[in-house]
Amino acid sequence: HLFKKGAFITDISGVKQSVVHDIESVLREDLHYVSHHPMAGRAKEGYQHRDPDMFMNNHFLIIESERASLTDYELIEIIGKQLGFKTLTRISASLHDQMIAYTSQLTHMIAVSLMLGYPSKSHRFTGDSFRDLTRIANINEKLWTELFLSNQQDLLDAVDIFKKHLIDLEKAIKNNDQETLMKLLRASREKRKDFENDPK
Amino acid sequence: HLFKKGAFITDISGVKQSVVHDIESVLREDLHYVSHHPMAGRAKEGYQHRDPDMFMNNHFLIIESERASLTDYELIEIIGKQLGFKTLTRISASLHDQMIAYTSQLTHMIAVSLMLGYPSKSHRFTGDSFRDLTRIANINEKLWTELFLSNQQDLLDAVDIFKKHLIDLEKAIKNNDQETLMKLLRASREKRKDFENDPK
Repeated sequence: HLFKKGAFITDISGVKQSVVHDIESVLREDLHYVSHHPMAGRAKEGYQHRDPDMFMNNHFLIIESERASLTDYELIEIIGKQLGFKTLTRISASLHDQMIAYTSQLTHMIAVSLMLGYPSKSHRFTGDSFRDLTRIANINEKLWTELFLSNQQDLLDAVDIFKKHLIDLEKAIKNNDQETLMKLLRASREKRKDFENDPK
Repeated sequence: HLFKKGAFITDISGVKQSVVHDIESVLREDLHYVSHHPMAGRAKEGYQHRDPDMFMNNHFLIIESERASLTDYELIEIIGKQLGFKTLTRISASLHDQMIAYTSQLTHMIAVSLMLGYPSKSHRFTGDSFRDLTRIANINEKLWTELFLSNQQDLLDAVDIFKKHLIDLEKAIKNNDQETLMKLLRASREKRKDFENDPK
């Protein structure tokens, strides 16, 4: 009874299948609801770390729903555009969760693992790459524990994919297999270049 | 016979034990040699990607050697200072290789593995964290194949440490173990903060 009649509701949760389902199952008939995910953030919390360019060059995902009308989608798209996002994309909650498991939750698991294994007080042995890969290890434990657990299966699948490739590299190093290493690193370079040149 | 009498020689190789040993074993008696590692770089090659601030806030490692005199160390320290590095540190070749395996070579293996498992054309599902973690996946395959293989054992040890922590997280997620996840993520956050505040 707290929402005005006909109000428009959205959420910015990082995992969608469970959230959207839970909200829709209790949503009053007259309310409009479209979930979205602004794919941008900062490792440091608080107003003093604000950045007016935070949304530029970043992506805004809109979650498809049987409840949403065209007008509802248009409204959330206007919000995304006004915030300055580079792209707006409509996708299903399940595709969202599967992709985000790899590109966001897995990357946080990697950063945390790398930080946990780091020998303290070794600052002088680090360069840009270590700093970049551990920036997000400065993590909000409550938020991310919830995100990890509410996207459990997609995330475990993503970890498996990543581990497979890491183990391929590890084996090639163990076997002094120069040819395989060259091939894997070349594939990585080419994929990273395609990623940079992706026309969005 | 190509070096002038009494010349000073250095190298910037990313792995030291094998390199320093090989050079010292053929070094003429009159030559001075101190190896160093400038811990700074850019993913993109070529003069057009130069950055005059590349060395600022970064670390310069000087490799200890029985052959080096105090004057030799002083000379390489002057070079490091003039290039603008924040810290200069003298260490043994073996400690260098052990630390660099974790902070630099492992980070490159991680970035490559993450890139190789990425589903192509998924740009709209990525944010800053994925971009940051894969920046160095744009890798020079010849150079890094050589670096990986010439620091084989230290690197395999580093991979084991990282995998152990990743598997801890994975297990906690599989077991819906909220408490362990909170504990690990909190430890990561605290370690990352210590890292930022390390007095250098």
